[in-house]
Amino acid sequence: MSVFDSNFKIGVLGGGQLGRMMIQSAIDFNFNVHVLDPDANAPCKEIATSFTHGKLTDFDTVYSFGKDKDVITIEIENVNTEALKQLAKEGKKVFPQPEAIELIQNKTLQKRFYKENGIPTADFIETQSKADVAKHTDFLPFVNKLATGGYDGRGVQVIRTEEALEKAFDAPGFVEKLIPFEKEIAVIAARNEKGEITCFPTVEMVFHPELNLVEYLFSPAIVSQSIENKAQEIAKTLISKLNMVGLLAIEMFLTKEGEILVNEIAPRTHNSGHQTIEGNETSQFEQHLRAILNLPLGSTKIVQPAAMVNLLGEAGFEGPAKYEGMENVLSQEGIHVHLYGKRITKPHRKMGHATVTASSIEDLNEKVNFVKAELKIKA
Amino acid sequence: MSVFDSNFKIGVLGGGQLGRMMIQSAIDFNFNVHVLDPDANAPCKEIATSFTHGKLTDFDTVYSFGKDKDVITIEIENVNTEALKQLAKEGKKVFPQPEAIELIQNKTLQKRFYKENGIPTADFIETQSKADVAKHTDFLPFVNKLATGGYDGRGVQVIRTEEALEKAFDAPGFVEKLIPFEKEIAVIAARNEKGEITCFPTVEMVFHPELNLVEYLFSPAIVSQSIENKAQEIAKTLISKLNMVGLLAIEMFLTKEGEILVNEIAPRTHNSGHQTIEGNETSQFEQHLRAILNLPLGSTKIVQPAAMVNLLGEAGFEGPAKYEGMENVLSQEGIHVHLYGKRITKPHRKMGHATVTASSIEDLNEKVNFVKAELKIKA
Repeated sequence: MSVFDSNFKIGVLGGGQLGRMMIQSAIDFNFNVHVLDPDANAPCKEIATSFTHGKLTDFDTVYSFGKDKDVITIEIENVNTEALKQLAKEGKKVFPQPEAIELIQNKTLQKRFYKENGIPTADFIETQSKADVAKHTDFLPFVNKLATGGYDGRGVQVIRTEEALEKAFDAPGFVEKLIPFEKEIAVIAARNEKGEITCFPTVEMVFHPELNLVEYLFSPAIVSQSIENKAQEIAKTLISKLNMVGLLAIEMFLTKEGEILVNEIAPRTHNSGHQTIEGNETSQFEQHLRAILNLPLGSTKIVQPAAMVNLLGEAGFEGPAKYEGMENVLSQEGIHVHLYGKRITKPHRKMGHATVTASSIEDLNEKVNFVKAELKIKA
Repeated sequence: MSVFDSNFKIGVLGGGQLGRMMIQSAIDFNFNVHVLDPDANAPCKEIATSFTHGKLTDFDTVYSFGKDKDVITIEIENVNTEALKQLAKEGKKVFPQPEAIELIQNKTLQKRFYKENGIPTADFIETQSKADVAKHTDFLPFVNKLATGGYDGRGVQVIRTEEALEKAFDAPGFVEKLIPFEKEIAVIAARNEKGEITCFPTVEMVFHPELNLVEYLFSPAIVSQSIENKAQEIAKTLISKLNMVGLLAIEMFLTKEGEILVNEIAPRTHNSGHQTIEGNETSQFEQHLRAILNLPLGSTKIVQPAAMVNLLGEAGFEGPAKYEGMENVLSQEGIHVHLYGKRITKPHRKMGHATVTASSIEDLNEKVNFVKAELKIKA
């Protein structure tokens, strides 16, 4: 059956903003996108071809959701891979493959994979417990990471001194050399079943000087051609060695010495690719669909420089969202608002993003600051 | 209530491709779009917040659909304006206003409006019957148009000779001087309640040399700055004089003498603005939403030159659509496919469009021809 047949069904595990933006793209191709999510009011609910309310980590729920779909994909890694393996065994297309998801779910396996495949990454030592971590005082300062269960910044902590060792995780994971990086950059690679690979041009993250949080990112990154080539090469090698079909987002450190070290990877559309909607020929969401449906991959060429800033719920507010300053933001040229259909705001909840387009990095910067100053999401 | 409140409801009369693309844009703003359409399988059905199956020309159906909405708009002119007037009287926002829709529904009223307001248009003589048309042999060659009931090319015919007079319409309308135009161009104007007006840069239609049908259009039009200014000025004057809120698409003839004559207008998003999705800062669909919700209008600046070609059902085929050549089309850079969610193809049915982006008119032309040659919609 052709993927353009009106009976062809795509199943997505997860119904958040990544799924929502993928559906916006799928509409252009008449694709039917069916969604499973544990949140009865997930962002995809209103626009999915069908919406199933259920747990992504439950074997039976995932298996029965996938049974009548033609291709099954994910927008979050924390899913039941045993059910996906069973579906794949029964002949369903499951992209990314469950084995790739499992590898990426476990940060220790990820690190081993980099080492075995010659992928540059920060030095690390595997640890089993808090006591184990404490043995490595000569490795300080380091980052202590949990192998599994970490998500959205959880399961990761920086330990700089011997005194701080007492907060080490008391579960399997590793300690990783703290990298005094120059920049954090990211590349999103795509690969289809035919083995065709494309990468989006490298983007660069801008950190808040005090909070040490990504404030925004911009595209293209300001790096030399040789760094750009190296980053693209690493991304291609990673997706090939993983033998993965779909999208792979790769976050990397660029050190002061011009070395690139892979930090983390995600086998799906990613926050670091939102600016592709306005900034590139093909968006990451369309590219994901093309990859998992074995269609030719789209051009990743930059149409215009772009920056992406997350729109977060204002601290101190929880309840039905109100968007203060939206009119001011909409009155400025080159600001593209994307809200995620979340009725309730909470402190720091990702409620949407804005992509800013401009012809220079200074203008991008100025517009990002304008958005941050003007738009407040309160309750 | 803010338009960003989750209880705010937009109602759209018509659920075809224009509504569908508007909903794709509305998703970015969390807008709830409720749709009324007489076709139970209308393109908007799957993605609208709610879908009501019913007649657009029936008073009770339109009135009861509009009763619980906050703003009511249209994506087709052929609607019951009495119901809309009643809704407006009861305090609902109805944009475009019912009076503007009524004027535009009637081509004779349109022509009178141009004349009364000094808008340049081809000379015409009002007629009441076939016998009436036959009196104007000295006005030949002309176009005979029905005042009402014409749609999608129906209700319009060219009469070149006395012999051809026998096919004249036997109903009220007019005869209009046949204009040997150089080019057909179009401008889409937008106006919000505050009275703010913007126009998209002029686009140019390319006609099939034999069939005399629009083959494709491109943006920006190849016209002098003074023609561009004149076209924009006419568009602004029209939407102001109509006192309209929403979008107004204006199709114009450019004569060999450099004169611009208004041909037809439509009070809504339009086929001649589809390329704005990829080609301009703000798409016509987002602009329509901004206009009817009294938000600041978006920048209409061109991001990249673009051409738009309709994807029509192949002659001789009717049934569930199959898209031949789609993979070839998707393998080329700068081709953006938009399908309209119509399961059944019919000869010449608009099944979608492709926007082509390139840096030169020659490249645009070449890619349009590639799409036309490669992509066939059959059953």
